Amino acid sequence: MSTDLLDKPAGLASPFVRALVRLMRAEDSYGTWEGRTDADLLTDFIVTKEQRREIPIIGDPDPDVLWRLEKFYAAVGIDIERVTGRIASPMMKMSHEGFGRVLLTCGRLVVLTRTLRDVHRFGFETIEKLGEAGDKLVADAAGWIETHPDLADA
Amino acid sequence: MSTDLLDKPAGLASPFVRALVRLMRAEDSYGTWEGRTDADLLTDFIVTKEQRREIPIIGDPDPDVLWRLEKFYAAVGIDIERVTGRIASPMMKMSHEGFGRVLLTCGRLVVLTRTLRDVHRFGFETIEKLGEAGDKLVADAAGWIETHPDLADA
Repeated sequence: MSTDLLDKPAGLASPFVRALVRLMRAEDSYGTWEGRTDADLLTDFIVTKEQRREIPIIGDPDPDVLWRLEKFYAAVGIDIERVTGRIASPMMKMSHEGFGRVLLTCGRLVVLTRTLRDVHRFGFETIEKLGEAGDKLVADAAGWIETHPDLADA
Repeated sequence: MSTDLLDKPAGLASPFVRALVRLMRAEDSYGTWEGRTDADLLTDFIVTKEQRREIPIIGDPDPDVLWRLEKFYAAVGIDIERVTGRIASPMMKMSHEGFGRVLLTCGRLVVLTRTLRDVHRFGFETIEKLGEAGDKLVADAAGWIETHPDLADA
């Protein structure tokens, strides 16, 4: 699928980043992204320090950033399967002002819970940092499932 | 607050129904419901067999029925406190077609999870049945908290 075998940015091989890319491509019904490399697709998730400085501190999130936020947590949910054999389902509730909450649940267990703020500034400095952030959430969530498998199955 | 001490419909004294009424009145910022009795407020939750027969099988839920659905599960969440000392927070995700999911969580524990369907037909035959339905959900949820207090506190 991707042709950027040379010059790959660091982090592109992280399992979480692979899951995120698959999820994004799964929604590309019209094939508009077929010509874009994985690294290129992920650039929307990247907000460098300079870019962040230019984003107003207070702002309403646009539909694109909400879509990316949903994909990010959905990717955590499906990547949990790689580690534990179980998928976690996301539930997200956002105010139009960019304040909200996201849950990932697996059976009767809340494997991830986060308050969301400043969602209009959502992004990561590099693809590597995006991967690290996702991998950490997956590992934390998997830890809850491993210690409470009965509830994850309930 | 309520003046309908005589002729009270059955079920009006159920703890869950009391919680639901309090929650509804808490949102009555303009005092438009001050003149309505509790029983009268709850009539919106009542769908008799005859009324149900007249509702199309397929239909989009209107904002009022979505509001009542949210209040119903929020009342379950706060009434759980009466039994366990802990409040459960609701998360609801609905499609515009009336299909969705509701979760109540307490700490790391999912104390209620339900798939929602045919939401445009949401309602109960009598106030008594409304109370019974709520009381049962509260009891089930409380059971999860009582068997997993560590997760409910996590």
